[in-house]
Amino acid sequence: MTGEPEFDRVKPAARLFVDTALSSGAAIELDRDRAHYLQHVLRLAPGATIELFNGRDGGWTATIESFAKRGATLETKAQRRSQVASPDLWLCFAPLKRARIDLVVEKATELGVARLLPIETRRTVTDRVNLDRLRAIAMEAAEQCERLDVPVIDAPVSLPTLLGSWDTSRTLHVAAESGEVRSIGEVLAPAPCAFLIGPEGGFDRGELDLLRSVPFVVAIGLGPRLLRAETAALTSLAVWQALRGDGSGPDLRPPFRD
Amino acid sequence: MTGEPEFDRVKPAARLFVDTALSSGAAIELDRDRAHYLQHVLRLAPGATIELFNGRDGGWTATIESFAKRGATLETKAQRRSQVASPDLWLCFAPLKRARIDLVVEKATELGVARLLPIETRRTVTDRVNLDRLRAIAMEAAEQCERLDVPVIDAPVSLPTLLGSWDTSRTLHVAAESGEVRSIGEVLAPAPCAFLIGPEGGFDRGELDLLRSVPFVVAIGLGPRLLRAETAALTSLAVWQALRGDGSGPDLRPPFRD
Repeated sequence: MTGEPEFDRVKPAARLFVDTALSSGAAIELDRDRAHYLQHVLRLAPGATIELFNGRDGGWTATIESFAKRGATLETKAQRRSQVASPDLWLCFAPLKRARIDLVVEKATELGVARLLPIETRRTVTDRVNLDRLRAIAMEAAEQCERLDVPVIDAPVSLPTLLGSWDTSRTLHVAAESGEVRSIGEVLAPAPCAFLIGPEGGFDRGELDLLRSVPFVVAIGLGPRLLRAETAALTSLAVWQALRGDGSGPDLRPPFRD
Repeated sequence: MTGEPEFDRVKPAARLFVDTALSSGAAIELDRDRAHYLQHVLRLAPGATIELFNGRDGGWTATIESFAKRGATLETKAQRRSQVASPDLWLCFAPLKRARIDLVVEKATELGVARLLPIETRRTVTDRVNLDRLRAIAMEAAEQCERLDVPVIDAPVSLPTLLGSWDTSRTLHVAAESGEVRSIGEVLAPAPCAFLIGPEGGFDRGELDLLRSVPFVVAIGLGPRLLRAETAALTSLAVWQALRGDGSGPDLRPPFRD
């Protein structure tokens, strides 16, 4: 890749996350669903070039060799992008109703979180979190936004469990009631860090007391309007990336290209 | 209101935007839909207190006097919040497919935009913008997030029309391809300003040339990931509010209360 721009500007016809090692000349088998997507949704033919990534080996161009009834075979060609780790940014959030939790997962993936942690709170309205669906949404969003990794999505844990096993070197920003709240732009910690977003009804008194009692929590204010939980989550992540994350440097690749 | 906190912390049972003047002891008539919402969705009875706002006179407590078949009658009591203008922040955006344009309008309202301007571009995929639906979404989002005004939503215009009639004192931030792009956190202008978000397919070459030719455009970078149009819109607004808008001061009211 020496002397070439790190990111080849010719857009591949598709990007797919795969769970296998990527190296030059490797044969990659795709399952039926993904083969169907390439052949019948994107209408790609053998010979078309796509990009593969696995969260470890960077982005690889790969050529479609053949379609079969139960899948497809691709051959990797060259690494077109080096692996870049996402910033060590976590989002802890009380599960929301379906459309809104899907939105949080999709947008948090686009906004570059490394890990999503559903947290049970006293006022959480949703009993069950469909992790398979959320993981599929995250994978698709990662493919779409040109990340080279897919965020990890944990199984839900309770708020006391989360806080009890917390690595205290990771700042936990909480958009929660507190006597003194400073603007998010003023108090953001660098990575490793996390945001915790409560349920629509807010944390209850006991949860707020618990949050106040731990040393790694920093309360943040998100402005004068009362934001819905998913808006609070996305606002926090967007501001963090712009000020402390990988959106904060100069000479960025712009989000829209022609 | 002297000596009292500006924002009464007791949450009213509902908040409604009305298009009539608000002053002490005024009788306010609600139409059938909104009366139905109070009576049958929120299950409020006569005597319940809600908040009314009209974008001009602040937030007023009002008591439900009676429900009738075709509406309801309320009586205003006292001003509980002074009128606060939203920052002079506009969002110009290429219309998106239904779920995503609805999301942009809802979230942009929560994020405090004053005006939403749908812009026709060469690659805009949607022919028709249902302004009535978008205005209803904005009104409901304003009620929910405790704004005291509702953003104006303009009828769509073409990009050349928009730029041709632009007040050059208003900076237009564009998340678009450009030779040199600096991070959003570094280049944001104060109000009055606007963001322009292109269609999913990006601006075409002629549109980019046009945008480069006008003096009030500032190109911004939103980080290394390729954001969907609606994510680019919400990220821009969130970062602006945190750094230049009404989310940038100290002592903010926190977004979640118990």
